[in-house]
Amino acid sequence: MHAVVRADLHEAIRSGRFKPGDQVPTEPQLMERFQVSRTTVRRGLRDLETMGLIVRHPGRGSFVTRPTVEARLDRLTGFVEDMEALGLTATASVELVETVPAPERVADALRCAVGEPVVHIERVRLANGTPISFDDSYFVRSLGSRVARENLRDEPFYSILEQKYGTPLAGADHVIRAGLADQRVAGLLHLAKGDPVLLLERTSCLAPDREPVLFEYLHVAASRVTYRLSLDR
Amino acid sequence: MHAVVRADLHEAIRSGRFKPGDQVPTEPQLMERFQVSRTTVRRGLRDLETMGLIVRHPGRGSFVTRPTVEARLDRLTGFVEDMEALGLTATASVELVETVPAPERVADALRCAVGEPVVHIERVRLANGTPISFDDSYFVRSLGSRVARENLRDEPFYSILEQKYGTPLAGADHVIRAGLADQRVAGLLHLAKGDPVLLLERTSCLAPDREPVLFEYLHVAASRVTYRLSLDR
Repeated sequence: MHAVVRADLHEAIRSGRFKPGDQVPTEPQLMERFQVSRTTVRRGLRDLETMGLIVRHPGRGSFVTRPTVEARLDRLTGFVEDMEALGLTATASVELVETVPAPERVADALRCAVGEPVVHIERVRLANGTPISFDDSYFVRSLGSRVARENLRDEPFYSILEQKYGTPLAGADHVIRAGLADQRVAGLLHLAKGDPVLLLERTSCLAPDREPVLFEYLHVAASRVTYRLSLDR
Repeated sequence: MHAVVRADLHEAIRSGRFKPGDQVPTEPQLMERFQVSRTTVRRGLRDLETMGLIVRHPGRGSFVTRPTVEARLDRLTGFVEDMEALGLTATASVELVETVPAPERVADALRCAVGEPVVHIERVRLANGTPISFDDSYFVRSLGSRVARENLRDEPFYSILEQKYGTPLAGADHVIRAGLADQRVAGLLHLAKGDPVLLLERTSCLAPDREPVLFEYLHVAASRVTYRLSLDR
């Protein structure tokens, strides 16, 4: 029965019905609703706490965990810069580096021909050891074949481009959508298959001509990240 | 067997593995992969076309449908303005209008006390008859009790505030996350339970003091909408 309590609350959190910071129903409410003992309710809540989904404050109740990361979308910043601004330690694991023919969407973003060689790099980005984002990145070949030889575990793309190569970025175009973690993304981000992910398609462009050099699919664990932005009327 | 072909491709589209505009595998590829006849493959593809998930171009193949709506997040615009800019007809169905005690998150956004009365309005927003977004909105009481008496089926909030009441908006703060459609949201947006949704928490503020007057949870059907924004470095 504790698995039923856990699954019900897990679903409410996953779906966004219970939002970060929300109080989840109290022990007496859960006992009443599921017709189970306090021990069973507590076991369900303890499981959710172990999964990092709720925080329990004895005497005050349980609350949906606030995401680890609240990043801003006002100005183009890289993952490492965002994490540093939040006092978190950013690391990366490099899953793949290869040269491939450009798929249609990539060619379109990088303004090259479909099938032209591009450098494909896959990384998992972590904050204090928790996987935050799976970045599926495509560089134009000239720049990419240089970047591919760098220490990508420790050095972020933007710092390689700007500090190491002296090629300042102008900015990036973003397409924001939502999706679900498939088996592979779930495994890499320590999520369950079907958990929600934010999908950002980001095209980074060099100054001064806004030449697109890097196109990425960022798969962001929705339970661990929110983006904030302010818009003027 | 055609249901297996359909379910497999549906999952690939839902998860974002096949993205809008992507070509789905060809009929021969699908026949080989599922070990089924061309008739069976075609039946699966026809189902997906009926569901609005793919477009079939005879001789060229099938492609994942591009979302109905591509909105921008550069400047604060309302739903009706976005749809008009895209040449789409915006309508709304009003699901609920009530006065309730402010929940914690709402009170926090509207800078009022928890439990203070606020006006709660639920609407489904449609573009050319397709449900796009479920908007769960909270107004500060003074303004909300006036807005509640307006024709909310035909008039959007921003136009009521600005054109009718002469109270210009300064802008809005957004929190962007991803989630899954629960039973109710799925029903209202004609989605399946567990389909991905973009969740925007939006706090709209009046000029000139940026006084927060409206807090909303926008549940946006991820398969039908993407947001675009450009950021400068």
